[in-house]
Amino acid sequence: MVEIRRPIQVNDALEKVLSQVIPLEAEEVELSKSYGTILAEAIIAPHDVPLFNRSPYDGYAIRSVDSIHASGSNRILFHVVGHIGAGDFYHNELRENEAVRIMTGAALPYGADAVVMFEQTIEKDNTFTIRKPFRYLENVSLQGEDAKKGEELISKGQLIHPGVMALLATFGYAFVKVSKKPKVGILCTGSELLQVNDSLQPGKIRNSNGPMIEGQLARMGIEYKSYGILPDHLEDCQNLVRKALDENDCVITTGGVSVGDFDFIPKIYKQLNAQVLFNKVAMRPGSVTSCAVLDGKLLFGLSGNPSACYIGFEIFTRPALQKMMGNVRPFLPQTKAVLLENYSKPNPFTRFIRSIYSFDGNQATILPAGFNKSNAVSSIAKGNAFMVLPSGTRSFKKGDVVDVLLLGYEDGVSTWNL
Amino acid sequence: MVEIRRPIQVNDALEKVLSQVIPLEAEEVELSKSYGTILAEAIIAPHDVPLFNRSPYDGYAIRSVDSIHASGSNRILFHVVGHIGAGDFYHNELRENEAVRIMTGAALPYGADAVVMFEQTIEKDNTFTIRKPFRYLENVSLQGEDAKKGEELISKGQLIHPGVMALLATFGYAFVKVSKKPKVGILCTGSELLQVNDSLQPGKIRNSNGPMIEGQLARMGIEYKSYGILPDHLEDCQNLVRKALDENDCVITTGGVSVGDFDFIPKIYKQLNAQVLFNKVAMRPGSVTSCAVLDGKLLFGLSGNPSACYIGFEIFTRPALQKMMGNVRPFLPQTKAVLLENYSKPNPFTRFIRSIYSFDGNQATILPAGFNKSNAVSSIAKGNAFMVLPSGTRSFKKGDVVDVLLLGYEDGVSTWNL
Repeated sequence: MVEIRRPIQVNDALEKVLSQVIPLEAEEVELSKSYGTILAEAIIAPHDVPLFNRSPYDGYAIRSVDSIHASGSNRILFHVVGHIGAGDFYHNELRENEAVRIMTGAALPYGADAVVMFEQTIEKDNTFTIRKPFRYLENVSLQGEDAKKGEELISKGQLIHPGVMALLATFGYAFVKVSKKPKVGILCTGSELLQVNDSLQPGKIRNSNGPMIEGQLARMGIEYKSYGILPDHLEDCQNLVRKALDENDCVITTGGVSVGDFDFIPKIYKQLNAQVLFNKVAMRPGSVTSCAVLDGKLLFGLSGNPSACYIGFEIFTRPALQKMMGNVRPFLPQTKAVLLENYSKPNPFTRFIRSIYSFDGNQATILPAGFNKSNAVSSIAKGNAFMVLPSGTRSFKKGDVVDVLLLGYEDGVSTWNL
Repeated sequence: MVEIRRPIQVNDALEKVLSQVIPLEAEEVELSKSYGTILAEAIIAPHDVPLFNRSPYDGYAIRSVDSIHASGSNRILFHVVGHIGAGDFYHNELRENEAVRIMTGAALPYGADAVVMFEQTIEKDNTFTIRKPFRYLENVSLQGEDAKKGEELISKGQLIHPGVMALLATFGYAFVKVSKKPKVGILCTGSELLQVNDSLQPGKIRNSNGPMIEGQLARMGIEYKSYGILPDHLEDCQNLVRKALDENDCVITTGGVSVGDFDFIPKIYKQLNAQVLFNKVAMRPGSVTSCAVLDGKLLFGLSGNPSACYIGFEIFTRPALQKMMGNVRPFLPQTKAVLLENYSKPNPFTRFIRSIYSFDGNQATILPAGFNKSNAVSSIAKGNAFMVLPSGTRSFKKGDVVDVLLLGYEDGVSTWNL
């Protein structure tokens, strides 16, 4: 007799998974190694940026008051009394009709409150003239105009990208507090599986899910330990899952989640006394995607079918791992796009179709990436997005606007709107 | 006298850069290390996928001919003569009204041409009955339906992402031929620059461009060598640039590209006898972005201003590095979005505004990421996109649809449509 499982909706399953996530601790990493990690503290400006009034151009720093009467018929003469390269500091105060030659980024000398660009002057020996008045603070980058001391600039839980690294460097963070990354164990089940470097044998296929999940984790910048292909024996299997749980923060298995005679994963969950969050989801492919939790650690039981496995990871495992890292934007980026061909199948469950998203300069389009079954591998190789068709719909037409989840992002979005 | 430079258009500058790119050689990498590299060979199916007719479900393999007369009032009985787990192979040929219990993914036995799902049967001891006829090849995953032997599935020059890794694994690629990644040298100029861990001093700022570019390269999965802050002496500077060129495929400098008294980069290009491709681009910020080529190696002279530096890298350096790796999709992904506030400044040059792109479930929106000057650092930390306003335009209004370049992608698009 076949076990009857009750499917739950994708959103409900996702909520169950995320509610079990225990965020990881923080650690300090070198700034140069911080790309792709998640900030475990807010960046609050420890000082103004700029730290001082500075020149945004190469030119002359003057006292604006000296330029008031300048005009084409009354050019005003300034005496150049010094020269400030960027990083230099001029210690005297400017006096009447004095100017200091100043380079981009350099601090204005005391008394100076405007900058004349070279092209606004006629230079002669150690003097120059100008033909227009300059306003107070004209051509001056003001202290604090970019960031004010005490201002929260980037909140905790944001991805550290190159722009954030620039800000951290500005504030002198040689080290930065980030969330630890989860350690993830990968185990593949299936007595039909060969290793990648094995020759083909009748009835067997090479294990593609293992390398695929390694890539999905590498895309997230997460390290993993691969435990290879599980032995075809329940107790050995169970011991290996137990070992992987001990050694990692999260364990992913592929295959063995269905109701077939050799589907060990439900039995292992039971024997380990893991709490099963769900074992059937109202989605295609990937309806057998399962998730359990033991001692605060998540076990993802992904399908053995490559397309279903890929989607199960991106929809459930990815956001859970992001949340473990404290990422406030754990979900795949979404958009909408125009469907380029009819899609007539009914969708009793939410359907995720591996698709090719593109933007032609005017509009975003989406096209299924070829052969579309749960066991397909070519379409995950060709696709860069999932087209998402809600359950209870059918007969989408060329030209319809549909929901799209974009893959291949390093960053995500903050809410799940589907 | 100030040197007058003629600005060239962004597209022309980009074309000049890309025309100088010399693609790097190929190398073999382990499949598990291949994520984020670019394929240096097409993937052509060495065999069909599936390799054999297989069962997509757990059930019974039968001869469809035996089911022709099945109906509710005429249930047909089958004898279960064997059991095939996935990976097993049943060597006998099925005879009349025989069936073999078969698991998902297993090869159909000789003679079998349809699969009955468990839920379509009434089982009793070693037999079952069915109440409907099965068509020839019903519930069978056909040999070659996913990929045909000899078919080109993924072309050379595509990014290796997790789906591609699954395909490579399926075909037994334990190693894959990919383009080498460029080695990039980073040198920062500016006598105002402090190291990240230095205390602040009057007139000085910490070097943020170096760590930022390290992040921009890390985002592309490219390794770099940082040569630190250049000495304040032309000849030493030049020697260091020479050394960086010798040790790398591409050299990035920051700062020193303007026409100020301490702007060494143009002098260094001249003394090294490098061919200057451009030294002024009709863009804001980043108009001083320069590029030269020497012995087939590109030298990028990026602005010392963080926002300008960031944009110069993403618009010019990034696609050049992608093209060096043979990536057929070297450009930042584009989209369009609705502007959320008025932007009234005129745009004599193409303007790239660090912005926050988001998609609320219905529409894509874009908002400038705060303080918007070429020397700003907070806006690059807050932004995830560039809003692009064409030259010769002005007075964009809230609600206008504008062009957007998305950052934080691992992958790009194939054409530049702006």
